[in-house]
Amino acid sequence: MNSIRLQKIRKNMQSRGIAQLIITCPDSIFYLVGEWIHPGERMLALYVNQNDQPKLLLNELFPIEKDLGVAIISYNDTENPIDYLSKLVDTSSPMGIDKEWPSRFLITLMEQNPTLKVLNSSIAVDEARMIKTEDEIQLMREASSINDRAMGELIEFIKEAKHSEVQVGQLLGDIYKKYDTHAFSFDPLICYGANAAEPHHGSDGTMLGQDQSIIVDIGGITNDYASDMTRSFFFGEPNEEYQKIYDLVKAANLAGIAAVKPGAKFSDIDKAARAVIEAGGYGPYFTHRTGHNIGINVHEFPDVSSVNDMEVQEGMVFSVEPGIYLSGKYGVRIEDLVVVTKEGCEVLNKYPKELRVL
Amino acid sequence: MNSIRLQKIRKNMQSRGIAQLIITCPDSIFYLVGEWIHPGERMLALYVNQNDQPKLLLNELFPIEKDLGVAIISYNDTENPIDYLSKLVDTSSPMGIDKEWPSRFLITLMEQNPTLKVLNSSIAVDEARMIKTEDEIQLMREASSINDRAMGELIEFIKEAKHSEVQVGQLLGDIYKKYDTHAFSFDPLICYGANAAEPHHGSDGTMLGQDQSIIVDIGGITNDYASDMTRSFFFGEPNEEYQKIYDLVKAANLAGIAAVKPGAKFSDIDKAARAVIEAGGYGPYFTHRTGHNIGINVHEFPDVSSVNDMEVQEGMVFSVEPGIYLSGKYGVRIEDLVVVTKEGCEVLNKYPKELRVL
Repeated sequence: MNSIRLQKIRKNMQSRGIAQLIITCPDSIFYLVGEWIHPGERMLALYVNQNDQPKLLLNELFPIEKDLGVAIISYNDTENPIDYLSKLVDTSSPMGIDKEWPSRFLITLMEQNPTLKVLNSSIAVDEARMIKTEDEIQLMREASSINDRAMGELIEFIKEAKHSEVQVGQLLGDIYKKYDTHAFSFDPLICYGANAAEPHHGSDGTMLGQDQSIIVDIGGITNDYASDMTRSFFFGEPNEEYQKIYDLVKAANLAGIAAVKPGAKFSDIDKAARAVIEAGGYGPYFTHRTGHNIGINVHEFPDVSSVNDMEVQEGMVFSVEPGIYLSGKYGVRIEDLVVVTKEGCEVLNKYPKELRVL
Repeated sequence: MNSIRLQKIRKNMQSRGIAQLIITCPDSIFYLVGEWIHPGERMLALYVNQNDQPKLLLNELFPIEKDLGVAIISYNDTENPIDYLSKLVDTSSPMGIDKEWPSRFLITLMEQNPTLKVLNSSIAVDEARMIKTEDEIQLMREASSINDRAMGELIEFIKEAKHSEVQVGQLLGDIYKKYDTHAFSFDPLICYGANAAEPHHGSDGTMLGQDQSIIVDIGGITNDYASDMTRSFFFGEPNEEYQKIYDLVKAANLAGIAAVKPGAKFSDIDKAARAVIEAGGYGPYFTHRTGHNIGINVHEFPDVSSVNDMEVQEGMVFSVEPGIYLSGKYGVRIEDLVVVTKEGCEVLNKYPKELRVL
């Protein structure tokens, strides 16, 4: 149990009036106890209040060998784990619930404790995780540096135009392994031609054809921290419209990054990036938020979006990833990770952003 | 929209007094509309009641190109999708909720509709999915036949003792691909030596050593249906104790399978398998349920366990997978999938169960 992190979470609970909290996301439990437990469909829950030692409820099929510094309450497959949880709960205080907890557990808990008031209280954990320590930032620097190198190696394969989108993703897996990056942050998004105009196109068997746009959105997990970067390329001769939207997206990426500093609002960063694209006449084609925080998970709290007026703080790490998508034609997205510093930000990705024609 | 499946679900809703239901699991939505939608962290929900056309709430980032036969309500990243859902909800009737729905959505729905009573109602969908049609059974036969072949090819690599557990899992991926099986049903569980004594050991860098037990628990997704089989092997010369527990587990597997027929209880099947191991003196070392139903997902409703007195019905497909785990020494598990027939069952896995010494 990382007592500094536990203390942060308890402080957040106190300031938000959350007397007790059930933490259930494996990544938040890893953040606190330093151990990955993947319970599959079985219940995993860390019960935290202000005074007692935290209790970890765990199916006995997942034995923990090292001392996690937390009391473990073990149950087996013939038992209902909520019976154990209900014994810990103080029904006179609101109960904070982790955002991802499957409803079947929450509904059973409410049925067993009809007077219990439940609140979505992941924020107490998210606000702790959102400010990275120097050690965490160093790990994220290294993860993004590997991602830069991987992008460079991958593009050499892509320009051969011999591999489908899915095959390029597999090649990326092999590249990452060389750098001890054994998992993707997310399935690689390799998008050829008009596929690049769908912001969430899942890679498929599409092959690269002449005069097509390419989006490469990739990230890997290194030492438990995620990277995430996007670059856009063109295979063949780009026309004027593509060149124009590329320049707009690059300018939007730079404008977003330039707006990052402690005290700025996330919505200001979104606005700075979006204004460039709107001024260029492509506002309606930038169809998503500008970015998201990142750390142990690729998507962490909060978003960089027009509706998030939270203030940026030193130690946050998030993406700035504007894009323009012209349906049936092509798409461009350029994404970097930034760390908020005292005065502005440090950009973790160094891979060039000039339009590269393959 | 598969109208026969929708009708089954509506009938199950009616018989259980569920007037309205929110279906959110991508696999259940695939079961109904024939399309995989993986919304990541964004909300995906299919609202079903008895009379109106079902409504699919979907982030506009996931465009659907074909006609799914369902009305789509589209939202974007600056909107709260629960606002749309609340407009559909009839607050005077209990609302059925899908078991996996993240709590953050459920809690927001309850906050917007304080008088709404919510119930875990996945059962209405699960009971429809639990009885497979002849078409589905044929797909599962084919998936398991591929799994049999893959086991045969994989063991040739394992017996070279040149590959770590994780590397064997990667080789399995390559084997599956030859058979158009592009995803695992679950991360392959390749367990060498004492790792085989942990029922949920995650494959790692362990190498196979002389005189060690091996558990190989593998499954792949072929044409959207899952396979799942376990075999146990010995590398070197097994001692008497290993031979004894192997024979017990094999007998328990056969006893479990022999107990499968329409009208038997799931707990009877668990008991038939468990009794063999208990009679042999190893009852405490069979630490998990005997099996689980399977279909589009590797783990479907319900379990084959001592506490499930539901009756087995024709068309169900589930695993029978007893095991014995002697901590620090070795483990044995033997698992087959069975389809319930009019009189008994058909065993989908044909890979031999005799103890094979490598």
